[in-house]
Amino acid sequence: MTLLLDGSKVEMTSAPDGWWIGDAEGTDYGYLIDDATDPRPDPRSRRQPDGVHGLSRVYDPASYDWADIAWTGRQIAGGVIYELHIGTFTPEGTLDSAIERLDHLADLGITHVEVLPVNGFNGTHNWGYDGVLWYTVQETYGGPEAYQRFVDACHARGLAVIQDVVYNHLGPSGNYLPEYGPYLHEASANTWGSSLNLDGEHSDTVRKYILDNALMWLRDYHVDGLRLDAVHALVDSRAVNLLEELAEEVAVLSAHVRRPLTLIAESDLNDPRMIRPIEANGFGIDAQWSDDFHHALHVNLTGETTGYYEDFDSVKALATVIEQGFFHARELSTFRGRTHGRAIDRERTPTWRLVTFAQDHDQIGNRAIGDRLTATLDENHLALAALILLTAPSTPMLFMGEEWAASTPWQFFTSHPEEELGEATAKGRIAEFERMGWDPDVVPDPQDPETFQRSKLDWSELDDEAHSRMLRLYQRLIALRRETPELTDPRFTTVVTEFDEDARWLIVRRGPIAVAVNLSDDVVRLDLQGRVLLATDPGADTAEGLELPAASGAVIDTRS
Amino acid sequence: MTLLLDGSKVEMTSAPDGWWIGDAEGTDYGYLIDDATDPRPDPRSRRQPDGVHGLSRVYDPASYDWADIAWTGRQIAGGVIYELHIGTFTPEGTLDSAIERLDHLADLGITHVEVLPVNGFNGTHNWGYDGVLWYTVQETYGGPEAYQRFVDACHARGLAVIQDVVYNHLGPSGNYLPEYGPYLHEASANTWGSSLNLDGEHSDTVRKYILDNALMWLRDYHVDGLRLDAVHALVDSRAVNLLEELAEEVAVLSAHVRRPLTLIAESDLNDPRMIRPIEANGFGIDAQWSDDFHHALHVNLTGETTGYYEDFDSVKALATVIEQGFFHARELSTFRGRTHGRAIDRERTPTWRLVTFAQDHDQIGNRAIGDRLTATLDENHLALAALILLTAPSTPMLFMGEEWAASTPWQFFTSHPEEELGEATAKGRIAEFERMGWDPDVVPDPQDPETFQRSKLDWSELDDEAHSRMLRLYQRLIALRRETPELTDPRFTTVVTEFDEDARWLIVRRGPIAVAVNLSDDVVRLDLQGRVLLATDPGADTAEGLELPAASGAVIDTRS
Repeated sequence: MTLLLDGSKVEMTSAPDGWWIGDAEGTDYGYLIDDATDPRPDPRSRRQPDGVHGLSRVYDPASYDWADIAWTGRQIAGGVIYELHIGTFTPEGTLDSAIERLDHLADLGITHVEVLPVNGFNGTHNWGYDGVLWYTVQETYGGPEAYQRFVDACHARGLAVIQDVVYNHLGPSGNYLPEYGPYLHEASANTWGSSLNLDGEHSDTVRKYILDNALMWLRDYHVDGLRLDAVHALVDSRAVNLLEELAEEVAVLSAHVRRPLTLIAESDLNDPRMIRPIEANGFGIDAQWSDDFHHALHVNLTGETTGYYEDFDSVKALATVIEQGFFHARELSTFRGRTHGRAIDRERTPTWRLVTFAQDHDQIGNRAIGDRLTATLDENHLALAALILLTAPSTPMLFMGEEWAASTPWQFFTSHPEEELGEATAKGRIAEFERMGWDPDVVPDPQDPETFQRSKLDWSELDDEAHSRMLRLYQRLIALRRETPELTDPRFTTVVTEFDEDARWLIVRRGPIAVAVNLSDDVVRLDLQGRVLLATDPGADTAEGLELPAASGAVIDTRS
Repeated sequence: MTLLLDGSKVEMTSAPDGWWIGDAEGTDYGYLIDDATDPRPDPRSRRQPDGVHGLSRVYDPASYDWADIAWTGRQIAGGVIYELHIGTFTPEGTLDSAIERLDHLADLGITHVEVLPVNGFNGTHNWGYDGVLWYTVQETYGGPEAYQRFVDACHARGLAVIQDVVYNHLGPSGNYLPEYGPYLHEASANTWGSSLNLDGEHSDTVRKYILDNALMWLRDYHVDGLRLDAVHALVDSRAVNLLEELAEEVAVLSAHVRRPLTLIAESDLNDPRMIRPIEANGFGIDAQWSDDFHHALHVNLTGETTGYYEDFDSVKALATVIEQGFFHARELSTFRGRTHGRAIDRERTPTWRLVTFAQDHDQIGNRAIGDRLTATLDENHLALAALILLTAPSTPMLFMGEEWAASTPWQFFTSHPEEELGEATAKGRIAEFERMGWDPDVVPDPQDPETFQRSKLDWSELDDEAHSRMLRLYQRLIALRRETPELTDPRFTTVVTEFDEDARWLIVRRGPIAVAVNLSDDVVRLDLQGRVLLATDPGADTAEGLELPAASGAVIDTRS
C-alpha cells in the first residue's frame, strides 16, 4: 500500500496482522491499495472536502476551543428528546444555521437533541443512513468544526446531544472498506446493504473500528449519547455481544470524562435484555426505542390497520404499551407470523428506558409520500397525540416540527451523483410502493432535488395562529411533565390503566394524577373528580365527573 | 395535642391513625403533647434557633433564590470526594466561611464535597452524629439558608454536594420522637442509641419520616447525594429493605429534578447486594465505603496491627483490596471471630462503587488522641498513601486537610449543655481508651472547648513549604487520575497486581499503566520499563528497570 499525500507518493511498510505503516505530515491524502492508481479515502478520515470518493483531509478535533468546560452532562431519566435532521431542520440545512434554532428547543423544554446521522454520505443531501465514512462529518452540513460549534452551542443552552450512528450496514456508494480488509460479513446482508463482520475471522479489528467510532463522538465531539440504528440487524454470535462491549467501553469513557454518556438502541426485538444493565446480565444499553407505542397510538388516532399496524387496533393496545412497555411480549405478532418479544420486568425496570414517539423520521419518511400526522388528523386528534405522548411513563421524543404541527412532509430523498445508482434507488422506492397499491406518480422521486426542498421545515408557519396554538400546547405539556413528579415516576408499577373498548376512552392513573383520553367521536363522562391541570379542549368539565368532548383529553389532579 | 404558636395555644383535632391536625400561621411554635406544659419541637422542624430543646421556627426553603439553574448534576463515576466537617473546616466553623474555601477544593481537583451531618444537635459543636432534629440545619453552622448558599456556591464551582445523614439512631439529648409515636424499636439498640422502628407496627410512618428527610436534602437543598451512616445498624426484616425503598424514591426524584442523585452507604457488611442495582436484585445503593482498603493501607504504612487491623498485615492484603474490592469475602475475620463478607462480581461491578480513603473522620477521630497519619508517618510515607489512594480503581475520598498533611488532630468533641450528659460522655470515652491501655490523662476531654478548637484546620500551614509540597503532590495525583483513562477504568478485570511479600513491593497494572510501590526501607529494582508519569521520590529511575528508593512509588506508562 502506498500513501498519496498532497500529490506525492509515500512508501508504507507492511506490519504484522496485515497493517501498513507510514509516517508523514501533510493535508490531503489517500491510499493506493495493491498498486492501484486511484487513491481511496482513509477509512478513519476526519474530513472529505470533495465527497466520499475524494481524498481525505487531516482534521484534529483537539484544535477546537470548547466553551463547555462547566458542562457536567445530562442524564436521560426525566428527559424529553427532539429528533432533527440537519439538512431539513433549517432552510440552509447546516449545523451553523441549526444553532440559531436551539433557543426554540430550549424554550420548548427539550433536554436532549438527537441528530440524524451526520457522517459522510454520497452526494449533497441524504437522510444520513447511507453513510460510508463514519469518522467524518458531512461537508455540506459544515464539517467537523461546525459540528463542534453545534454541540458547544447545545451545551450552552443546557441541551444534551445524542448522535444517531449506523453500524449495521454501509451506504451503497463510497464504501471502500472491503478493499482494506474483511470488514463485511460475506454471507449475510440486510435490507440496506452488507452486514459488518462482527464475529468472523479478524472481526476484533472490525469491532474496534466500530467501538472507536462510537467513542470518537462522545470524546472528541463532546456528544452526550448515541442512538444506535437498527441493532437487530447486527449479526453477532459472540458470547460478549458488540452492544455489551460498547456499553463497557462507554462506561470507561464516562468515568474518564465524568459525564453521563447514554446509549439508546433502535431495536425491533422487544427483548428486555437489551436495556438491562450489565450488572443485571443485560447488554447495558441505557434505553431503546419502542415502535409498539407508536403503532398503538397511530392506529388509535388514524384508524390505519394495514401491515405492521394490524395487531394494534384496540384501545387495549394503547393501554398495554403505556402500562407494560412492550405490546408483543412473547405473543403472536401477526405481521411477523411468529411469537415475538418478552415481557419487561415491571417491578424493576425504569419506564424511561423506553423512548417513545407519536412520529419519527422513519414513521413519517417511510410512508409513500412522507406525510406527517398533520396530513390525516385534525387539530383535536393532533393534540391528543401530544397529550398521550407527553404524559406517558416512557421518555418522549418529538420529530422536528411536530411541536407546531408542521404541514411540510418529510420524504425519502437522496442525491446520488452516480446516475445509475440514483435511478436504481428511485425506481426501487417507487416500485416498492406500487406493489403496495400506490399510484407511482404520487410517490416522490428521491433523486428529485424538490423532494429534499419540500421536506425542509417552514419556520414561517409559526406566524400562523393554529400552528402557534399547537406549539403552546406542546410547551404546556412539557412544562406539566416537568412540574409533576408522578408523570416521570420511573416505576411501571405506578401505572394503572382503565379503558372502555366500545366507548373508546382510556384513563391512565399515576398515583393521584389521572390522564383521561376520549378517543371517540362522542362526548364521554368519566368517574373522575379533581382539578384539571390541562385539557386539550376547553369544554372539559369536572362539575359532575369528568366530561370530555369528542377527541379530547385532560390531566386531572384527583387530590383537589 | 395542642399547638403552641407565638405564645398562643391553638387547638388541634384528632385524626385517624393517631395524627393531630391544626391550621394556623405564625413563626415560632411547639407542641404540647397530652396536655403537657413544656412544648416539644416539631419532629419535622426546619429551624431551631434556640437549640434542640427550644421552639421550632417556620422556614420555607422555597424562599431561597437559587443561582444554580444551569446545574445538571454530577455523576459519582470518575469523581474525587472531599470529606469535611463544617465546624472545624474553617476557624469560624460556619457554612458561609466554608464557601470561602471552595476555590481551594476546585483547584485541588475535587468533584464532590461530602459534608458531615449538619442537622440539629445538642449544643454548639459536635461531630454531627448526635443529631435529633433531622429536618433542621444546625444554627451554629448558619441554619438552612446558609446551607442553601453553601450548596449553591459548590454548584457554581462545579462541585457536587453529598450530605452525610444518620438514620440508624438518634442523639442522646433532644430526642422527643418517642413522645410523638412509636419511632423507636423497643427491643434493639446499637452502640450509639435506640434503633429506629423500621419493621414493627406503624413503621410505615417511621420509614416515611426517614424517606421524606432524605428527599428533603436532595430536593429542597439541591444536594446531589447522600452518605448513609452505618447502614449495617439499620434493623429491618422487611422483604423490601428500607435502603431499596430509599433508592426507589430517590430514582423517582432524580427523574423529576433531572439530575443524577447518588446514594453512598457506610456499610460494614462487605455485602455486594448493597451496591447492586435494583435491576440486578440489589438494594440499588450507588456506592459504599470500604474500610478494608483503609485498613490494608494503614497497616502497610504504619505497622499497626491491633484490633481490627489484625488480618491486614501483608502486602497481599493491600493487593487484594485493590484487585478484589473487599478483603473479607466469605473468609474468617479474626476481629469479628466469624466468616465475613462475600466476593464482589469482578466481571460486572464497576470499581467506582467502592469509596476508599487513607483517612476519614472515623479512622482519625476515633483514635484515642484523634491523630492523623501525619503524627506517625514521614513525608515519604504520606506521599505513598496519597499515591496508592489516588491511583486506586475505587472512588477516592480525602479527609479535609489531608491534602496538605495537616498537623492538626481531629478529636472527638461534644458540647452537651447538660452537665450530667457531658460528664457521662467524657467519662465513657476516656474509660474506653483506658481499657485499651491508654493513659487517661492523654485522652482529650470531648467536652473541653479546647478539644474542639484544637481540631480546627490551620490554614496557615499552607504557607509552609513542606505542607504546600504535599498539596502540590495531591494536585498532581488528582490531575494524573483525571488525564489517565486507565486509572478510572471501572472494570475490576483490568486490575492486575503483582507483589513480593518479603521485599515489600507492589505493582498494580491497569493495561499499559503501572503503579509501582516500594513499601520497604530499601531500594528495590522492578522489571518495569517506560515513561515515569509521576514519582513520589525524585530518585525514581527507569534506566534499567524501575529503581524505587525506600518508601516511594511511581506511575509508569509502559508504552513509552
